[in-house]
Amino acid sequence: MEGEEQRDGSRGGEAVNGSDSPASLDGIEAILNYEFRDKRLLEEAFTDASYSPENCSSFERLEYVGDSVLNFLITREQYFSNPNLSPGSLTRLRAANVDTEKLARVAITHGFHRYLRHNKADLHQKIEEFGRSIEEYPLHSNGMIKAPKVLADIVESTIGAVFADSNSIDIVWKIFKELMEPLITLKTMKKHPMTELTEMCQKRNLKLEFRDRWQETKEIEVLIEKQLVGKGSYRKKLIAQNRAAKNALDNLDAFFPQFNQPCQPM
Amino acid sequence: MEGEEQRDGSRGGEAVNGSDSPASLDGIEAILNYEFRDKRLLEEAFTDASYSPENCSSFERLEYVGDSVLNFLITREQYFSNPNLSPGSLTRLRAANVDTEKLARVAITHGFHRYLRHNKADLHQKIEEFGRSIEEYPLHSNGMIKAPKVLADIVESTIGAVFADSNSIDIVWKIFKELMEPLITLKTMKKHPMTELTEMCQKRNLKLEFRDRWQETKEIEVLIEKQLVGKGSYRKKLIAQNRAAKNALDNLDAFFPQFNQPCQPM
Repeated sequence: MEGEEQRDGSRGGEAVNGSDSPASLDGIEAILNYEFRDKRLLEEAFTDASYSPENCSSFERLEYVGDSVLNFLITREQYFSNPNLSPGSLTRLRAANVDTEKLARVAITHGFHRYLRHNKADLHQKIEEFGRSIEEYPLHSNGMIKAPKVLADIVESTIGAVFADSNSIDIVWKIFKELMEPLITLKTMKKHPMTELTEMCQKRNLKLEFRDRWQETKEIEVLIEKQLVGKGSYRKKLIAQNRAAKNALDNLDAFFPQFNQPCQPM
Repeated sequence: MEGEEQRDGSRGGEAVNGSDSPASLDGIEAILNYEFRDKRLLEEAFTDASYSPENCSSFERLEYVGDSVLNFLITREQYFSNPNLSPGSLTRLRAANVDTEKLARVAITHGFHRYLRHNKADLHQKIEEFGRSIEEYPLHSNGMIKAPKVLADIVESTIGAVFADSNSIDIVWKIFKELMEPLITLKTMKKHPMTELTEMCQKRNLKLEFRDRWQETKEIEVLIEKQLVGKGSYRKKLIAQNRAAKNALDNLDAFFPQFNQPCQPM
């Protein structure tokens, strides 16, 4: 746990490990700055169901607990620091901080993925791709990239493991508040492009259509008032749609200069 | 808070208050056996949005917090007391203890509804009806009756209020573990009749159909292998469907005696 190499390897540095064999779990204790009483919890938190030697438990139970602990801790934090915020806005703010992408970023940033024990053929490549993609979006992509779910799972299972080991929400929060920085705030939270575009068009009474050209070109096209304003592609259709919406938002001023005017009553 | 009348009125006794005007909130402190430092939280927890004199806040923010606190507390309790239970079973067990009906029962049992400030015309009648219906199902109806959501909301908002006032999950749990008794356990948890019937028919390879006669008779009929085996009615269609499934389950032995045999490989 105290080795220089583990500390170096676990924070900062390159985002994605080049090797497929997981590092010794001691390194995780250094990342967390927490020493487990029961090391089996730590082992469980980093074991995927695809990796099962010697009746080793996988992380799902701890992930289940960690999800609930994290949900509560973020709720508490945001409730007390936003005394006038509506429940709807609180819900969106919480979701932005506990969604798959946000947690997968936490995993990559702190090198959790190096410790994952799994036997999934293409996972290493997906993690590498995700590590590269997030460089384009410093805080959150808002649905423009696909995060490997297992990365979010091991952050939740580690939260669950620290909680099960310490039985203290205060210890969990002390550790994970720091690891999750920067938390997304009201000021930094953005809408998904799909949501933003849909709301804009509704407000301005403009007809919005998504043309599905997935079969032919793997593209989704955005038409506003029958004009082609944006398009997007990705290997997941929902993300392609979101990228098309983002592209349309970027092009909107050129096509519809009146978009920048205040909304007129209809 | 110490008055004999409030204590008598708040526990046991008749389930539903005959009057529409809410009782003094001091009574709630007696039910909870907890004295609020900030009485405004207590007021907020029992104020519906339909009741808004003098800029009084309504319960939604506290309900949002209480939902998360309760989810965490039940998760913790069940995780530690069921060391080998799968996450899927843990999810179902938690859901059974925090769903609208379970929490609405808590509200009625302890008289929370007497303190609700609202201006909803038909709420009193719905609460009375619910109070009568639960007598038929001592623990949980599993989807056979409709619970007024506001009753569950005020249990969550009260949990949120105690948490916001005390900032202690241990105080919340000490109070609400008792108020929520009997908690539903693995032994006492039952499936919804719809789920049970569907699974039974799938296992035995029997053709199951629901015939929608809502328009004509407000009834849903269950046909198994084209025989009419059960029917159900209710003012909500989903509940009528569930009641029809229950009726079919009750009649199953008479129609298909082989249902009691062990499942044969197909």
